[in-house]
Amino acid sequence: MPTTIIGARVHGRPNYLAVAWCNIVNQNPPYVCIALSKRHYTNAGIHQNRSFSVNIPSAAMARETDYCGIYSGAKTDKSQLFQAFYGKLKTTPMVSECPLNIECRLLRVIDIVDHELFIGEIIAVYADADCLENGKPDAGKINPLIFSRADNNYFALGDAVAPAWQVGRER
Amino acid sequence: MPTTIIGARVHGRPNYLAVAWCNIVNQNPPYVCIALSKRHYTNAGIHQNRSFSVNIPSAAMARETDYCGIYSGAKTDKSQLFQAFYGKLKTTPMVSECPLNIECRLLRVIDIVDHELFIGEIIAVYADADCLENGKPDAGKINPLIFSRADNNYFALGDAVAPAWQVGRER
Repeated sequence: MPTTIIGARVHGRPNYLAVAWCNIVNQNPPYVCIALSKRHYTNAGIHQNRSFSVNIPSAAMARETDYCGIYSGAKTDKSQLFQAFYGKLKTTPMVSECPLNIECRLLRVIDIVDHELFIGEIIAVYADADCLENGKPDAGKINPLIFSRADNNYFALGDAVAPAWQVGRER
Repeated sequence: MPTTIIGARVHGRPNYLAVAWCNIVNQNPPYVCIALSKRHYTNAGIHQNRSFSVNIPSAAMARETDYCGIYSGAKTDKSQLFQAFYGKLKTTPMVSECPLNIECRLLRVIDIVDHELFIGEIIAVYADADCLENGKPDAGKINPLIFSRADNNYFALGDAVAPAWQVGRER
């Protein structure tokens, strides 16, 4: 699963939560979906500001990322943990230290037992210049953290195995 | 993103689709969510049988996995591509060649523009014995494929970076 840091302003302050239950759910327009336990402090901020950010930490940020997943904003002020920046919506903090930031406007909330699915439309994507290859984000340069729930470990991305929508044609 | 092969019986025959838009959306009971374009042949089979499987291919299966993403079951019979097996529900084919198989009962379908979100409850998980470590699936032994949409590549999993819910305590 991808390792992300979800940014939201909660009760007027930036807050950050480590989330692996995040993926894309529509291509055009581009939507992302995150599943958050209702116990999280972050949920109220997403409802309040109708927006959230998905930030992709590099492997060098494992410690800070894990910290965001362990300590709740209800008890721990995480607002100074990162250098926040604001984009088009002005309502949702993004993490400057992350090589890739995705700014989302909340579209819909779906209730799933004790979780909420937040579906957001991607309004803008911000990437560090040195993580681009031919003008597009490059996975190897971003060097993201992969999360495994089975063994509760963060992994680095390994070697490229094969090009998608291509290697299968040679079968 | 994770690379999965979604199994479903469509018009009486096993069919397989490569899907990266897949994640967990509830912990207890455990639910998974997959987002499929409405153009896919697979969707009708999930509706018909109210079930689907999520199969995790190893890195050695990149070619077959990509094949499942390139060729639609509407035109290409993929029923013999893998050795299918059936689990508790008896309605959804799983891929014997994959080290990990997740059998899901369909709970809910959510309409998102030109995609459908299929939310399924995990009924059973099947894992190859040689992919277990202390009785649990081990990410390194499964050797999954990681998909990057930015550069359209399949990657292997890299080295373990840090233990989750642990490294952040040392901050």
